[in-house]
Amino acid sequence: MQAPDALRALVESYLSELALTPELGGLAEPIRYALGGKRVRPTICLATAEAAGGTVEAALPAAAALELVHSFSLVHDDLPAMDDDDERRGRPTLHVVYGEGVALLAGDALLAEAFRLALSYPAASPARELAQATLGMIGGQYLDITGADADLAELHRLKTGRLFAASVGLGLWAADVPEPEQAPWRSFGDELGLLFQIADDVLDGDGYAARLGEQAALGLVREAAERARAALSAIDADTSVLLAIVDELAVRTV
Amino acid sequence: MQAPDALRALVESYLSELALTPELGGLAEPIRYALGGKRVRPTICLATAEAAGGTVEAALPAAAALELVHSFSLVHDDLPAMDDDDERRGRPTLHVVYGEGVALLAGDALLAEAFRLALSYPAASPARELAQATLGMIGGQYLDITGADADLAELHRLKTGRLFAASVGLGLWAADVPEPEQAPWRSFGDELGLLFQIADDVLDGDGYAARLGEQAALGLVREAAERARAALSAIDADTSVLLAIVDELAVRTV
Repeated sequence: MQAPDALRALVESYLSELALTPELGGLAEPIRYALGGKRVRPTICLATAEAAGGTVEAALPAAAALELVHSFSLVHDDLPAMDDDDERRGRPTLHVVYGEGVALLAGDALLAEAFRLALSYPAASPARELAQATLGMIGGQYLDITGADADLAELHRLKTGRLFAASVGLGLWAADVPEPEQAPWRSFGDELGLLFQIADDVLDGDGYAARLGEQAALGLVREAAERARAALSAIDADTSVLLAIVDELAVRTV
Repeated sequence: MQAPDALRALVESYLSELALTPELGGLAEPIRYALGGKRVRPTICLATAEAAGGTVEAALPAAAALELVHSFSLVHDDLPAMDDDDERRGRPTLHVVYGEGVALLAGDALLAEAFRLALSYPAASPARELAQATLGMIGGQYLDITGADADLAELHRLKTGRLFAASVGLGLWAADVPEPEQAPWRSFGDELGLLFQIADDVLDGDGYAARLGEQAALGLVREAAERARAALSAIDADTSVLLAIVDELAVRTV
């Protein structure tokens, strides 16, 4: 069992060596620029695969696919037509550096490359789950830009939660866990997105933190972390690395 | 064997009844608005499947997936950051009606829905081919917006040709044609995109027509149609409907 930091390093190395489709040509540079991040989703995917009896190596393409879908959503979210953000992770956003047209295409390419990676498995299940999660996420982005009075829980379940749940799901497929045995793992995956999102809101002072106040939001973080730990304890496997990831996600706010 | 018009009607009916992912919510309306068009690619897909011994019914999800990828590319191409087109097919473009943010998300959703459809087959081959073709197409769009002196043939091979070739390819997968038997069909598919694109340039007075003059471009249309017919004649099957489609594509310019 490898610790979260070791898994993150493997993701980093896999992404830096990832061969993009040659026909993308010069678009490869902005695509790689967009691939910065904390690797939260791929790390969950790898840790799930290893806990479920699979290998990290077999799960790396799925893990990378999740990170590419996440990056695609950020690149398009940052565009002037959406959130109009000039900076992300302390650097100018993609469209500021390369222009809006290139950023639009780089986002499109990230999504298509994610499917190419998810389709590198013999079975279609990982790509199917990625498609459903991506569609749910886009539904959440639509609520975010149009629904002034949108239900915050439903918005986060779609916009953040679907891809976190799929991070567990793709880890299970990569480890060849049969569908009838996936339920307890998926209960865990369903808790992760909310945990991450509320903690994020506390750090940023928006969303749940703005609506409920910081102390109440911190209470929700603790509750979500408790539910995630309880879900893990119901799984008959060594889930210690996933437990460490839950602790990391929750402790960010302390 | 059904004629092109009958196949187009089946595509039309399939698309109008297509159940979109419920979580897309209100985004379904702009997505459906974007789905107007001549159905050239899905018709080629269905005709290929039927000529290769498959059923039209089995090929309809693949055919629809191709149309959704095509529509996704148009919606994003029309955005102000790209071609900035206000009108398409005699109607205001999506972003003019629904705003840029919604158009961006509708395009994203069209691409993800296309993969969901291509992934409705037991095997991953149709979705794999769709991913490769989409990435080639995006590479072509990148050349189009950045490469002032781009090789026109290479640009069209990517931007238009890849999805036309995949229209034949997905028809073959839907008809369960084994890969070793696909080569003659694929030679045909490789000719279609160029035929369509030059004819389009003649109709619009741009691209090849602008660069070479209308008469020279019309000569290229005739040559491309001849190569497509020759490729068909090398296939040991009743390819009469595909021949009719070639004639339709070529005759548009007369």
